[in-house]
Amino acid sequence: MSSLDAAMTPEEFRRDGHALIDWIASYRAGVEQYPVLSKSSPGSILEALPASAPELPGDVTAILEDVETHLLPGIAHWQSPNWFGYFPSNSSEPSVLGDLLSSGLGVQGMLWSTSPACTELEMRMLDWTAEALGLPAHFRFDAPGPGGGVIQDTASSAVLACMVAAREQATGGVGNSQGLSQGSSPLVAYASAQSHSSIEKSARICGIGSRNLRLIETDEHLAMDPLALASVMNKDIADGCRPFFISATLGTTGTGAFDPLDSIAPLAKEHGCWLHVDAAMFGTAALCEEHRWMHAGVDQADSWSFNPHKWMGVTFDCSCLWLKDASLLVDSMSIMPEYLRNKATDSGGVVDYRDWHVQLGRRFRSLKLWFLYRVVGLEGLRAMVRKHVEITRELASWIEETDGFALAAPASLTLACFRHEAGDEATRAIMEAVNASGSMSLTHCEVGGRFVLRLAIGQWGTTRDHVRRGWDQISSVAKEVTSS
Amino acid sequence: MSSLDAAMTPEEFRRDGHALIDWIASYRAGVEQYPVLSKSSPGSILEALPASAPELPGDVTAILEDVETHLLPGIAHWQSPNWFGYFPSNSSEPSVLGDLLSSGLGVQGMLWSTSPACTELEMRMLDWTAEALGLPAHFRFDAPGPGGGVIQDTASSAVLACMVAAREQATGGVGNSQGLSQGSSPLVAYASAQSHSSIEKSARICGIGSRNLRLIETDEHLAMDPLALASVMNKDIADGCRPFFISATLGTTGTGAFDPLDSIAPLAKEHGCWLHVDAAMFGTAALCEEHRWMHAGVDQADSWSFNPHKWMGVTFDCSCLWLKDASLLVDSMSIMPEYLRNKATDSGGVVDYRDWHVQLGRRFRSLKLWFLYRVVGLEGLRAMVRKHVEITRELASWIEETDGFALAAPASLTLACFRHEAGDEATRAIMEAVNASGSMSLTHCEVGGRFVLRLAIGQWGTTRDHVRRGWDQISSVAKEVTSS
Repeated sequence: MSSLDAAMTPEEFRRDGHALIDWIASYRAGVEQYPVLSKSSPGSILEALPASAPELPGDVTAILEDVETHLLPGIAHWQSPNWFGYFPSNSSEPSVLGDLLSSGLGVQGMLWSTSPACTELEMRMLDWTAEALGLPAHFRFDAPGPGGGVIQDTASSAVLACMVAAREQATGGVGNSQGLSQGSSPLVAYASAQSHSSIEKSARICGIGSRNLRLIETDEHLAMDPLALASVMNKDIADGCRPFFISATLGTTGTGAFDPLDSIAPLAKEHGCWLHVDAAMFGTAALCEEHRWMHAGVDQADSWSFNPHKWMGVTFDCSCLWLKDASLLVDSMSIMPEYLRNKATDSGGVVDYRDWHVQLGRRFRSLKLWFLYRVVGLEGLRAMVRKHVEITRELASWIEETDGFALAAPASLTLACFRHEAGDEATRAIMEAVNASGSMSLTHCEVGGRFVLRLAIGQWGTTRDHVRRGWDQISSVAKEVTSS
Repeated sequence: MSSLDAAMTPEEFRRDGHALIDWIASYRAGVEQYPVLSKSSPGSILEALPASAPELPGDVTAILEDVETHLLPGIAHWQSPNWFGYFPSNSSEPSVLGDLLSSGLGVQGMLWSTSPACTELEMRMLDWTAEALGLPAHFRFDAPGPGGGVIQDTASSAVLACMVAAREQATGGVGNSQGLSQGSSPLVAYASAQSHSSIEKSARICGIGSRNLRLIETDEHLAMDPLALASVMNKDIADGCRPFFISATLGTTGTGAFDPLDSIAPLAKEHGCWLHVDAAMFGTAALCEEHRWMHAGVDQADSWSFNPHKWMGVTFDCSCLWLKDASLLVDSMSIMPEYLRNKATDSGGVVDYRDWHVQLGRRFRSLKLWFLYRVVGLEGLRAMVRKHVEITRELASWIEETDGFALAAPASLTLACFRHEAGDEATRAIMEAVNASGSMSLTHCEVGGRFVLRLAIGQWGTTRDHVRRGWDQISSVAKEVTSS
């Protein structure tokens, strides 16, 4: 076989593939040996890489040497059990293998007909997941009605798709056909002041504008205040605006607050708004029955999304989105050029996922979800969830017991937010010292104008010991910072 | 190690990873044994899969058995050398390994600081690629000025991002801040009648509306007619509309036509329009100097995109987008909540790719591009391109020499479009018979109201023999179809 027949022979692929699998196994087994955060300075990796692509072929061994020499120092080790920053990005081994199979098969799932298995495994995985989370049956394909789910790349894309569908529902399709520059009543969207920045980004992209997104004030637990929402909606209607979209967050990015879906849902219904649920961060907890209190009011939701690529262990990217009536999304996204026409689509009897999001082409992403379920089972996933929730409960008690520290918000599932009584500067100095030590990662947010630290638990390998050592270090650093 | 410490032990990951690598190597070595297109009927795969996720753990061996039994019959084998449908989706072995490393490392590249190597390798790969394609230096990070490139998932997302940036440039940021429902002059976009459906999809999503996208008529080669463009633009201005965006296609999806960028560019300049170039399909050809005629006029382009996940051999998804002034895109996409603030970003000295597209989270996608360059070298890529172009030239001569067949448009690089003189029904019947045979895949498009077949070459393993056998079969099927 010459290089004109393949980029690698099967023998080369086997040899180099085994070597890479071994490399990854060793990397993960030894991930705690690296500083969790990178100490690279801007441009240093760029400079270490040649200015031009190689003319001649090379081998994978040399690439892996360069990975160790040049890339690893620039990696933040998200798979470390000492990763407590931002959110867990749990790339579990089974899902790594499922995604490898996706690349290996190299199929395009844009239409049902371009690989029926890609579409139908995804449909089944979305049904499995909806059932596993205890979501309403009307989100499933295997229940009567127009509901169903889809894998989006990110929750940002998911909320954009839903906002466009809601916009088209509100305008009767005029936004898509005529554009929004028609001078009719401004469409107005609602989310809490603690909602994710992707809501505002979507409002900008789809032409609604930041001015027409109301960021509703929150209560003492940083959850949306439904009375404030009702009041703002009434004022908007009085002012000639048209409410069309509400996003409720189950687990805000900052502090893990849960908006009261059951109080928000009646307002969405009253005003004919699309009700979207952003459970990106904490939807995974609903795998366990004891956390399904978060579903109160979910029957009224038009769409519900969460990110298996966060806590649940599916390698990025995998954001699941369910629609109560998927036809509203499909109608707002579908364009049928001649080159995509096919008998299966014309029959109306198949799902063409290209009409469920911005992109046309799509990977066989459901494989990574399938591999995870098959290898670990729901029992394994629930055990992981319960372990992390239990550790976080302990962490919250340690925080409360430690002199000088206070929780800045109630600890929420696997996220604890805290600050030091010595003030914002001291709190920031603690974060910077801890992060510079290399032994863990922390990030921050703002609560009531105060600088607050976030400790987010959720990597599969994180144990009570990791968190205990982490807290001991934070306490010890705090003493140094506040005594100096 | 218990299952609470990891979803798989390192030993299990090694064993199952090796097995999967071997499975993929065998699958690819034997891909020609499968019918190229799936014969599954809708719902058959869905029914073969259990209704619920398993409670208990299982093993990868059992999954791979199910892949063979239940999934492979529902796979269209895009990696077959007999794949001639839609476009090549060349998932080369080196890029499969590069993507595996991305999953294995499991890093998030949303900000420079969340893994500097993820951002800086991507910057370097975009510079390498721009140079390898002979694109203007101003698209590169290593040249002076505000240019640079980014990996998007698909060309659809790339054009949406550019259209939003252009919209904000045209409105002075008012679209983002106030929304488009202000009753000002409608913004109008332009693309050829042969342009990709993603242009219209973007116009809908970002609130411009289909009505404000002008699909300009094409010349006899199905390329945009610049005189028609000028005329429509002048009329729009006279009617009080505001031209803001032109997309020129280099290699249309239907027939591979090239819009005359050098004649379109002056019109973009005259009217202050953003000029986007969609070279998704055929940009790869510019790796070879003899195809750089397509760059005439490129100096004027504000953005230029192509899909390495098509012909070039990078496993989906990988769409490269360059901007002459990236700050226009970044300014239109950036929102900075407190929880994403960090010193590197505040310094203004780093690239945060989350501001270059819809999504926040992002994979380490540049690894799959890097592995491909390192393993194959530019010489290997150019050899692949030249092989496919040469085969297509031969194919075009065979089509012209075969009784009853005619090219429906000039053969373009690696795409030949043809029909049978017996008419549209016969032409469609030929496609259906050939596709049903399992020995190759063909798709279709419409040219001048006629049903036309497309034969797209570009899988790495496709040789002259595959195409010759394919054409012989098409000719033979045509005789049966037209004699019955």
